[in-house]
Amino acid sequence: MIIKGHIISAEEFGKVSIVENGYIVVIDNKIEGVYQSLPEEYQNEKITDYGDSLVFPSFSDMHLHAPQYPMLGMGYDLQLLEWLRTYTFPTEAKFKDSAFARKTAQRLAKDLIRNGTTRVAMFSSLHKEATLILMEELEKAGVCGYVGKVNMDRHGGENLEENTGESMVDTKDWLNQCNFPHVKPILTPRFIPSCTPELLTFLGEIAKKEGLPIQSHLSENTSEVDWVRSLENVDEYYQAYEKYGLWNSKTLMAHCVHSSEKEIRSMAENGVYVVHCPASNNNLISGCAHIRDFLNAGVKVVLGSDIAAGEFISMFDNVKETIKTSKNREIMDNWETPFLSVEEAFYLATSAANEFFSEGPGFAKGNSFHAIVLQDGDLLSPKELTVKERFERMFYIRQRHAIKAVYSDSRLVFVD
Amino acid sequence: MIIKGHIISAEEFGKVSIVENGYIVVIDNKIEGVYQSLPEEYQNEKITDYGDSLVFPSFSDMHLHAPQYPMLGMGYDLQLLEWLRTYTFPTEAKFKDSAFARKTAQRLAKDLIRNGTTRVAMFSSLHKEATLILMEELEKAGVCGYVGKVNMDRHGGENLEENTGESMVDTKDWLNQCNFPHVKPILTPRFIPSCTPELLTFLGEIAKKEGLPIQSHLSENTSEVDWVRSLENVDEYYQAYEKYGLWNSKTLMAHCVHSSEKEIRSMAENGVYVVHCPASNNNLISGCAHIRDFLNAGVKVVLGSDIAAGEFISMFDNVKETIKTSKNREIMDNWETPFLSVEEAFYLATSAANEFFSEGPGFAKGNSFHAIVLQDGDLLSPKELTVKERFERMFYIRQRHAIKAVYSDSRLVFVD
Repeated sequence: MIIKGHIISAEEFGKVSIVENGYIVVIDNKIEGVYQSLPEEYQNEKITDYGDSLVFPSFSDMHLHAPQYPMLGMGYDLQLLEWLRTYTFPTEAKFKDSAFARKTAQRLAKDLIRNGTTRVAMFSSLHKEATLILMEELEKAGVCGYVGKVNMDRHGGENLEENTGESMVDTKDWLNQCNFPHVKPILTPRFIPSCTPELLTFLGEIAKKEGLPIQSHLSENTSEVDWVRSLENVDEYYQAYEKYGLWNSKTLMAHCVHSSEKEIRSMAENGVYVVHCPASNNNLISGCAHIRDFLNAGVKVVLGSDIAAGEFISMFDNVKETIKTSKNREIMDNWETPFLSVEEAFYLATSAANEFFSEGPGFAKGNSFHAIVLQDGDLLSPKELTVKERFERMFYIRQRHAIKAVYSDSRLVFVD
Repeated sequence: MIIKGHIISAEEFGKVSIVENGYIVVIDNKIEGVYQSLPEEYQNEKITDYGDSLVFPSFSDMHLHAPQYPMLGMGYDLQLLEWLRTYTFPTEAKFKDSAFARKTAQRLAKDLIRNGTTRVAMFSSLHKEATLILMEELEKAGVCGYVGKVNMDRHGGENLEENTGESMVDTKDWLNQCNFPHVKPILTPRFIPSCTPELLTFLGEIAKKEGLPIQSHLSENTSEVDWVRSLENVDEYYQAYEKYGLWNSKTLMAHCVHSSEKEIRSMAENGVYVVHCPASNNNLISGCAHIRDFLNAGVKVVLGSDIAAGEFISMFDNVKETIKTSKNREIMDNWETPFLSVEEAFYLATSAANEFFSEGPGFAKGNSFHAIVLQDGDLLSPKELTVKERFERMFYIRQRHAIKAVYSDSRLVFVD
């Protein structure tokens, strides 16, 4: 497969490389290379020519809650713990109904793809059936990545709590039934207050035995941080994950708004990922994350929509929100902490997540091919724009039907 | 004219009134009333029934720059004064070309209407012809409100500066040629650094003589504030407007991010409006305005998109951005300044601006009829939503083609 267009990708943090009127060659579902002139050996192959369109890696949304999708955009006048009790837990409880679960999964999968998100790390609910349905529908629509059945055997809502034994059995059953080529399981203790020490111990043991990745929440809200300290008798929130073996280089921790210096250092040392969720942190007034500090400390940072605490399914919007939030951080820090540039935020939404999927940055040789083709010719312009200017602008405004095509693992999964 | 639907409006700050399956009666282009049951005298009149749709006042965008529309979404890695020199002034200079001016005006007018903005206070460029073209195109599309030819006789960009005499003559000519039923002139010194004392004196005199409203910028950026203090030898930025007679109850001042307590007090005493521009204040890292403080001090606050420093033409987005910014303010103030609720921000985007147009809040009796009809049946929901919940949600997510109809001064100006 050969794709022609203006090829844009972030090979290192803070820089984008642009090959105008360039070619991407994909052989046996792996990227062979990006070229300014097509090498002679491919001259007779069929070329898909996207003309003046931009071609760049599709997005990875590394934290979102599928069963919250029906309540997207609701309840943002509440803070985290109140929001969970009032809106979220009752909505998630409905996923014991498999028909409702399927309808939601189909819509979510479709909306992800049409917005150019082709890889995810996603929370399901605690329901085993609903989780398998979700994985099946993502697979069908062409979404790749990880999905986790949530574990929660304490402090749930009405109709939204497992007993410990049930949670263990269901988790094992679910793992045994996961058999999807592109959608893999990830262990998902909801967060420390939702899981008893017994359940956390069990999850830590499977993580080790099966080599499974882990996702959860960390230091999102000051009340939550205090609660965890007293529940688990730890100085730092992260130590509660660490003591159960849920703290390693395959661990995604969402939010990290109130992480201490010690927590940041431990994340760097253990290779734990921060999943930055700027829209959610603002909507629930959790705080304004110190992303530049994490980056300076060598912590790996990726982005999450955190649907439904964040309202943006489009990662274009979440990239923009990352920039905007970093500008607020700069203002809060008396204009002393530089904001994240478009190039930097784009890296977090694409290349940074590639590492979690064991791939190189951008369109690296050997990567699976995930891409968006975007057109912007319908926008007004004050002058002839460079490809770089068009790239920067696309996070702020896009024409209607801007996304012309989406590729996921070399498959054309969306055309407009 | 009788409209049926779920009627929503903000009659006082922080509250919305909802009449489910209610009626709005408009007689001779003025609102007669909102009714739960249609009064007998209208029983035989034709009813436009919008069924389960929401019907609420359309928006007023009280600060935007028409000639910046072609560069929407560009250059947000720069701060105000650099952004002006690099991107904005060169773009505005192109408006000496009347064909370019007309094309831009047509597109802007169309986009405002299709997004439900029916009233504006708008900056043109310094060009007399382009300003008249803009007013003509707004009038044609159904946009009402005020447009100002910009005055700037110092510190402009290349090809974007008038000499003082020219500026005065062109302003008088322009005022004489303004003859549009719905689009009226407003005096528009760009900001203090752009206008010599002689020109400011001239503008203050016309404002008084002709009773014309005034719009400008105030205390947007710390460097700008320092510059004005030294240029005009004043303690406070606002005193530069005050001394030239440009500071009264028909004055709109955009931004006010760095207003001192004294400036806030003077705004309250003189009835000067703050036009809050949250997207712009963030994009150019100007700061985070203290809107709750202005409101507590009794200052009138309205909203502006500040296109193109702000990227949102839709006032739905600017309402949301107002809420989000107030949440950042709350975080910055250690969770001590309450954020603006959806109801509060909605009031600022609708009823608060009505006062500037000499009308009552919401759908008050005697007001001209400006409204949006919105449908949301295509969104997923976790349960049957109340009209109030649907109203709150519409600022965060909307279905494609959500706006079904827009009315401006009783004219149906958009249908989808």
